[in-house]
Amino acid sequence: MNVNGKHFRTIWEHPDAPEVIQIIDQRDLPHVFKIEDLCSLDDTIVAIRDMHIRGAGLIGATGAYGVYLAALETRSHDNPLKHLTTICKQLKLARPTAVNLSWAIDRQLRMLSSEMSVGDIIQSTLITARLIADEDAQACSQIGDHGLQLIQDIAASKPGEPVNILTHCNAGWLAFVDHGSATAPMYAAHDSGLPIHVWVDETRPRNQGARLTAWELEQHGVPFSVIADNVGGHLMQKGLVDLVIVGSDRTTYTGDVANKVGTYLKALAAQDNNIPFYVALPSSTFDWNISNGLRDIPIEERGAEEVKYMQGLDGDRLTSILLTTPTATASNYAFDVTPARLVTGLITERGICKANSKSILELFPEKR
Amino acid sequence: MNVNGKHFRTIWEHPDAPEVIQIIDQRDLPHVFKIEDLCSLDDTIVAIRDMHIRGAGLIGATGAYGVYLAALETRSHDNPLKHLTTICKQLKLARPTAVNLSWAIDRQLRMLSSEMSVGDIIQSTLITARLIADEDAQACSQIGDHGLQLIQDIAASKPGEPVNILTHCNAGWLAFVDHGSATAPMYAAHDSGLPIHVWVDETRPRNQGARLTAWELEQHGVPFSVIADNVGGHLMQKGLVDLVIVGSDRTTYTGDVANKVGTYLKALAAQDNNIPFYVALPSSTFDWNISNGLRDIPIEERGAEEVKYMQGLDGDRLTSILLTTPTATASNYAFDVTPARLVTGLITERGICKANSKSILELFPEKR
Repeated sequence: MNVNGKHFRTIWEHPDAPEVIQIIDQRDLPHVFKIEDLCSLDDTIVAIRDMHIRGAGLIGATGAYGVYLAALETRSHDNPLKHLTTICKQLKLARPTAVNLSWAIDRQLRMLSSEMSVGDIIQSTLITARLIADEDAQACSQIGDHGLQLIQDIAASKPGEPVNILTHCNAGWLAFVDHGSATAPMYAAHDSGLPIHVWVDETRPRNQGARLTAWELEQHGVPFSVIADNVGGHLMQKGLVDLVIVGSDRTTYTGDVANKVGTYLKALAAQDNNIPFYVALPSSTFDWNISNGLRDIPIEERGAEEVKYMQGLDGDRLTSILLTTPTATASNYAFDVTPARLVTGLITERGICKANSKSILELFPEKR
Repeated sequence: MNVNGKHFRTIWEHPDAPEVIQIIDQRDLPHVFKIEDLCSLDDTIVAIRDMHIRGAGLIGATGAYGVYLAALETRSHDNPLKHLTTICKQLKLARPTAVNLSWAIDRQLRMLSSEMSVGDIIQSTLITARLIADEDAQACSQIGDHGLQLIQDIAASKPGEPVNILTHCNAGWLAFVDHGSATAPMYAAHDSGLPIHVWVDETRPRNQGARLTAWELEQHGVPFSVIADNVGGHLMQKGLVDLVIVGSDRTTYTGDVANKVGTYLKALAAQDNNIPFYVALPSSTFDWNISNGLRDIPIEERGAEEVKYMQGLDGDRLTSILLTTPTATASNYAFDVTPARLVTGLITERGICKANSKSILELFPEKR
């Protein structure tokens, strides 16, 4: 999508340096737009772990390019594939909850064999990384096409009024390579001339909604309002939300949805007020092995400082302020699991399905 | 309760200046502990409207002392009671949702008659303000005694382990004259030697949980963890919450609970996980006229800047930072209504009752 009128993806190959990958460092958005060079596996691990980039699809694509950067580092090794396999284990650990990361790394490694030369390994990992990035952008574009139908149906029921859509966290194009998952239907609707208005959950503690989703929508000209995470239930009670669309970090083949913490609370409120609650995800986000998300999806616990401190602009200066006493204790669970019973449907690149194994496997029969 | 080892209430008469009321200016807590003099009705309106003080009980007591300060300003008027009644209308408008404010002002005015001299009016309003403040502290102490029983019962079911209690916003002693409502059972349990641990919802956008409740508990030595508002649902799913206790800004006689926005979401999660959800309130918080809280309780909408900016410490300096782009739009609904069907019980100064008119009116038969 566009930044200051110029089209960007969130990750790309440096046009002048073949062994450098470039990303948008998202940490200082919306205040500072900064491009970062990734020159090594370590750079990639830091970028994923410390959330220079985040979001299911983008973590996957960055992981894939990370394998390419790691492959470059095997040139002096006797057994480059063995070494690559070993160092990729560290890469997998950079974010434990995101299934896309291990999915992308495993896909990369499956393409390789011990017969391949270092040059072949490097070439293969580059091609696969490109493919993963392109597929991600393509899947998001298709999610937009399918989700657009839902918004059109609601728009037809309230002619002349905007469709109010609530979203949580950032499942926007910044979380993928392009388009986004939850935002793809919104961009598609806006671009097709349907009036929409997006309620953007701030998404504490890291404020991905207020910082990233709001910035994306503003750049694209989509009307929105930032709200505290506490507000969505009230808006639903008052009839001010027509539709909820969120993304996912991992969804079981039975329809349980791990997403940014707080998603479960919005799903409960949507159910209590008969508001459709949709999850938009490319199929790379499905976990085909886990049937009980609440029991079996590991939930990352992050540092207390993310809760106690907040970043923003003081005048022209980007700074971080302390919200509590310095000695206050804080806990920071980063995700929660929304059980399938609360999910109206899943918007995938192949179409919309119910959040149960039967309906999901009908769309993805090769996973049976 | 104690601040730096010295006992304070949240509002008191200046010991050396009879026409001055003192409050703790809560805006800069937990970073700066500051005492403010209220010398006029205007000072009082500003203190209530701009939230130097907040919380149902304390708004009531401050409103009551505000009528006293207003009475002092009628000394030069021919018809002091008429003038007082007129200027008290402004005071009522300082916070529209808090029923305690109009309750306290109406109680003050009911004690007065047109036969009274200015001196009598001043004397009466001072005595009534004292009474309202003392009754508030006393009611909270009784809420603590009744709520303690709930915590004792849970503690008996898990010997040796702390009872985990989740609370939202600040219904602590800073929200009342002393003890607090939601916190009163926690202080009573802690003081009686029961091990408890409190999950403190940050409570965006004004962070009353992270700033005030956490500070109160820390000063008193009660173990706690600050969490983002998004986290409570996950904790409940994982069995990490035994009990929810929140306060209320207005509760209908049918048991619908208006409280800080986000309360409804926690009530939904408590119900979904079979966790008891209690509301602690002195009876002054009941609205005996409204039967449908969702339809009829007005919900205050505050400025967007409360969402877009956040206050905290940058090094030693208290400052406010911008979280979004300067041009981002934001909405700020301050309260929501939790329907009675989601409330396990109400903890009042007279005991615990169900959240329905029959049970409430059994405790308060004089309101039938």
